[in-house]
Amino acid sequence: MANDSRESADAPQVAKRILLGEPLSTEKANEQLLPKRMALPIFASDALSSVAYGPQEMLMTLGLGGLAFLAFAPWVAAAVVLLLIVIVLSYRKLIQAYPSGGGDYEVASKNLGEIPGVVVAAALLVDYILTVSVSIASGVDNIISAVPQLDPWRVELAVGFVILIVVVNLRGVREASTFFAVPTYIFIGSVAVMIVTGLVRTFLGDAPVAESAQYSFQHTDQLVGAAMILLVLRAFSSGCSALTGVEAVSNGVQAFRIPKIGNAQTTLAMMGGIAILLFTGLTALGLITQVHYAENPCRDLVGYACGQPQQSLMAQVASATFGAGSLPFFIIQAATACVLLLAANTAFNGFPLLGAVLARDGYAPKALNTRGDRLVFSNGMIVLGIAAIGVLVLFQANLTNLIQLYIIGVFVSFSLGQVGMVRHWRRLLRAAHGQNAEVAAQARRSAYTGLVINSLGASLTIAVLLIVTVTKFTHGAWMVFIAIPVLALLMMGVKRYYRDVEHEIAIDDTTHFGSEGDVAIVLVNRLQKPVVKAIDYAIAARHEKTVALHVAANPEDGVQLQRDWQQHRIPIPLVIVESPFRAYAQPVEAYIKKYRAKHGPAVVTVYLPQYIVGHWWESILHNRRARRMANQLMLIHGVTITLVPWLLDSSELIYGRRSRPVPGQQRAGRPLALYGEANAKPARRVQRPAGPPERG
Amino acid sequence: MANDSRESADAPQVAKRILLGEPLSTEKANEQLLPKRMALPIFASDALSSVAYGPQEMLMTLGLGGLAFLAFAPWVAAAVVLLLIVIVLSYRKLIQAYPSGGGDYEVASKNLGEIPGVVVAAALLVDYILTVSVSIASGVDNIISAVPQLDPWRVELAVGFVILIVVVNLRGVREASTFFAVPTYIFIGSVAVMIVTGLVRTFLGDAPVAESAQYSFQHTDQLVGAAMILLVLRAFSSGCSALTGVEAVSNGVQAFRIPKIGNAQTTLAMMGGIAILLFTGLTALGLITQVHYAENPCRDLVGYACGQPQQSLMAQVASATFGAGSLPFFIIQAATACVLLLAANTAFNGFPLLGAVLARDGYAPKALNTRGDRLVFSNGMIVLGIAAIGVLVLFQANLTNLIQLYIIGVFVSFSLGQVGMVRHWRRLLRAAHGQNAEVAAQARRSAYTGLVINSLGASLTIAVLLIVTVTKFTHGAWMVFIAIPVLALLMMGVKRYYRDVEHEIAIDDTTHFGSEGDVAIVLVNRLQKPVVKAIDYAIAARHEKTVALHVAANPEDGVQLQRDWQQHRIPIPLVIVESPFRAYAQPVEAYIKKYRAKHGPAVVTVYLPQYIVGHWWESILHNRRARRMANQLMLIHGVTITLVPWLLDSSELIYGRRSRPVPGQQRAGRPLALYGEANAKPARRVQRPAGPPERG
Repeated sequence: MANDSRESADAPQVAKRILLGEPLSTEKANEQLLPKRMALPIFASDALSSVAYGPQEMLMTLGLGGLAFLAFAPWVAAAVVLLLIVIVLSYRKLIQAYPSGGGDYEVASKNLGEIPGVVVAAALLVDYILTVSVSIASGVDNIISAVPQLDPWRVELAVGFVILIVVVNLRGVREASTFFAVPTYIFIGSVAVMIVTGLVRTFLGDAPVAESAQYSFQHTDQLVGAAMILLVLRAFSSGCSALTGVEAVSNGVQAFRIPKIGNAQTTLAMMGGIAILLFTGLTALGLITQVHYAENPCRDLVGYACGQPQQSLMAQVASATFGAGSLPFFIIQAATACVLLLAANTAFNGFPLLGAVLARDGYAPKALNTRGDRLVFSNGMIVLGIAAIGVLVLFQANLTNLIQLYIIGVFVSFSLGQVGMVRHWRRLLRAAHGQNAEVAAQARRSAYTGLVINSLGASLTIAVLLIVTVTKFTHGAWMVFIAIPVLALLMMGVKRYYRDVEHEIAIDDTTHFGSEGDVAIVLVNRLQKPVVKAIDYAIAARHEKTVALHVAANPEDGVQLQRDWQQHRIPIPLVIVESPFRAYAQPVEAYIKKYRAKHGPAVVTVYLPQYIVGHWWESILHNRRARRMANQLMLIHGVTITLVPWLLDSSELIYGRRSRPVPGQQRAGRPLALYGEANAKPARRVQRPAGPPERG
Repeated sequence: MANDSRESADAPQVAKRILLGEPLSTEKANEQLLPKRMALPIFASDALSSVAYGPQEMLMTLGLGGLAFLAFAPWVAAAVVLLLIVIVLSYRKLIQAYPSGGGDYEVASKNLGEIPGVVVAAALLVDYILTVSVSIASGVDNIISAVPQLDPWRVELAVGFVILIVVVNLRGVREASTFFAVPTYIFIGSVAVMIVTGLVRTFLGDAPVAESAQYSFQHTDQLVGAAMILLVLRAFSSGCSALTGVEAVSNGVQAFRIPKIGNAQTTLAMMGGIAILLFTGLTALGLITQVHYAENPCRDLVGYACGQPQQSLMAQVASATFGAGSLPFFIIQAATACVLLLAANTAFNGFPLLGAVLARDGYAPKALNTRGDRLVFSNGMIVLGIAAIGVLVLFQANLTNLIQLYIIGVFVSFSLGQVGMVRHWRRLLRAAHGQNAEVAAQARRSAYTGLVINSLGASLTIAVLLIVTVTKFTHGAWMVFIAIPVLALLMMGVKRYYRDVEHEIAIDDTTHFGSEGDVAIVLVNRLQKPVVKAIDYAIAARHEKTVALHVAANPEDGVQLQRDWQQHRIPIPLVIVESPFRAYAQPVEAYIKKYRAKHGPAVVTVYLPQYIVGHWWESILHNRRARRMANQLMLIHGVTITLVPWLLDSSELIYGRRSRPVPGQQRAGRPLALYGEANAKPARRVQRPAGPPERG
């Protein structure tokens, strides 16, 4: 991609520099490592920001069953918190065992085999895309809660934010983290203040009341038995969206400063603690303020005025606590929107890293493992950005619909990762026998703790995966169950392809030297400087035989060329072949075959003049015939293509000024001979008589 | 473009063959010429079909002034008919004088100079785009008149039809004409029958009455004086849209069978006659049946039920004459829709031809003068298709808005063309002196007739241009008045660019032979078969000096390569240069500079292995580093790039079958030496000891 653009200078290049900053050397990679205070906002913004929609979607789902169901909310929230604790503990063990940053993918592929590993990778890729989509959709939701006039531009806003985040991330990790740290900390602080304020007011008997408390839920059929349980489980599934993002840290251990493992584990624990506080606090305030939030307020709420957008739970709680339109309300909404939009950033760290790991292992195109100018995996970021925009447009940035697809992927990878960890510890336990007694005992203790924690983690995450699948499948999650295997199969195919290519191009016993013969063919259209330069270079390379070949789609051109040829006494013979079908490669091939039939096998070098233009728009004005010719001629057996560049300077004639000089660039004015600034030789015209043109 | 695709076979290629048919040879161009009965529908579908919207928009505009203004309709229609007669006569003279197909562009540039010629060309290009847009919008209108359920898909339908017409036209002229002849003749026949039926019924006292006769126009302020005149003139401007398409014949004379001029003139006269009959007939029926057609029926018609799409004038007249939902109604609607959609075809003949003429003269990119596989100017058609889709989407396929932009371009070119013709005849009159008396007299008579006719044409078309400009400018025509000069300036810039390039690459006294030195550098990444092949070819070309160069972005790779180099006893020295910035071209350039400083100037040939893949998707999986490298290295002074192709066969490994063999394609299994089927040599491994690797 971008990593080798430094040799040419161009308008797009300049724009790129301004957007992305100057390129960085590979050695700088270490200086880009993150301290904990920076790593927390980068890796935790996803997990933390999800409290902005987790409690909301959980309460909304319970509300579908009517007001009475809100009584289940504390229990559902407790289950989510319990799960979060177990997952955080499990991932601390995972980081300890696999600090290389491969996360669940590495764990699953090392302990369970190739296919589970690839499935985990596919699941994670899908969920990264959905993380961006859900976070941005929720962020835009919160913006619209504060500024309802923006409602008509919901999708446009969402797409615009994705593009903004892609550009910011292409600038590299460090700038990104500074950019993200501030709003994340403001978010944590302001929401914490809100929770404390709300609880203190409640304690003092002045409990805040949300505006939507006045609306009651539409009377629905009384749910009983299985339907009741299913609804509670659906609420739990929605609440679990607050759990996503935990795995981000395990995938990014290598981005931490030394000691990487310890720092990553600490960050993970801090993140878990903050997430639990915010989640429980916000759920509590939602219940205290009696926020009545509905999927379709027009239909589900009695007394709701249709046409206006429904405020998010966060906005309603903030309004109730601090007063609608108050300064704290706007601060909280701004911080929430920021942190949600930036939560997408977690994915823009995780997705390209995972993509690079997959590319390294041969499961993804190698271009994903190419660092850009700014040392980030630019291609992965661009792919993620495009995919997220696609999803947002498809779902019209509707949060409730997107949530249905979300967290399936996360729990697929959670489960397989945890199962893999269980295997890992069991293997370690077996291996711990027959060593030095004390060391073995300690290793066994550690492995045993890991086994217990990760077994618990595995059972819980598998159970949740089942619940999430059952409750969300028909609401859209089926799409994810199609996407994951399709992606996994594609990755297996890519792996197989690379393996086949490697095998095909590996040196083996049939590899040998010994090509013979050496013919140069200079393709000539009209006799102009670029062609003369190509002829000159072909002569300089002193091939065994050098001829000029003209493919005459139009007979008159051939006649004219012959005249020019003799007039200018070009020192190599000219061959003219006809081409009634306006094909160019076929007549050349026929000529080569005839030549070989007469003179024996020979390596053929075809010289093609190639225009190099200074501006992108100039390429519209040229046929690019040289490139197309090259592509076709390369299919002929035993042919190589030599491109002789000719730099066009016309741009400066049009603009009346010289374009910015590029180091090492050829000067068009001195196309022939003369390399090195001090080696200008006096011009001389070769006076050798030209041979009569052959007929091909 | 497409004209040289025959050497490779591929899935997209096969799809292209199915869509476009087999390629045609240049000689076949003559067999594609059109007899009159085919030329009429092709060149006249625009002019004839415009009666489907001309009378409608004329009556609608008059209706804006209230019911009383419809009394002006016959007079306005008479003015349009008169104008049409004058224009047809004028163009018969133009065809006689300039039969080469350049039309107004040629006349203006030859008689008035470069700038008027370019302006005419720009105006025509704009109007070709609008012809497509207006015709398609009106066609979709008539389809929706018959099938109102399609109303929500108006824009999608329009875009779909443009794409369909592009594909049909890419197949070539002859198929297109067969495709278009039938509906055009059905249209002429069925509308004629309708007019006769309607007039006979009126004559028998059973005048048909349109459904919309029940609605009266909203009362508007009584227009007096200038405002009244302006409205009548606006109606006249709208009616003049029926005049477009006359110039199509003059631009397409070369597509007629011999005698080209006579056939073209006859076709033009036939077209004019039919157009006048249909236009007057339909206007008369519109008045008789009391069709009340309004720009915004919801607002302008009393009693109109909003929400339903308004039927076109053609549909209302057909309903009134034959009964709503009757078979003749549907035949007329189908034929009208067909002929309108196909009228766009006139532009798909004219635009690419004009584009090719402009490209030949250097005013447009040369790619517009490249015939595709099927002998049509494919690129021009694709450009026109994209532009028309853009306009249709921008204006949401709204006919009344599009009409405001239309015919400005046509009348600009009409006027300049006629003025040019006046100059032409005056020059001939002057030249006719002093020759053989009888011949001179005859020439003078002919020139004199031409002068009279074209002077009349010039005055009338200039007058109409002024009327059209005044009445339409604020309604959207200003966009055309921006587009035409911008296009004209672009064309002048292109001309200047090509002239500068021609001048720059022309052989002059500084052109000389005499490059010296001959160094080959084989770029090596890892030691695999493609690299070995490149080394082998470099050795076969017996350069003065041949070295292998490895750019080590990663030091370990360099060490590994050195080991492989010695192990496989590669017979050329290996140079390793480091690259901390992951740049590839810069270190190569530095090496070349150092070499030249030490050994004197030399032409440098850089050998690059290049993968050739069998499927488009394979290119996603390769970095295309070779191409990017080539682009950068070509900027280094005195460097040529030799691409050594390596055909990847992995596709067959994945699919378990061999892809379709392409004639002359290289076999991957025998990459080295061995050209010609009978020249397989026994494999031998070169045993010369390798020199110690140099350090760069």
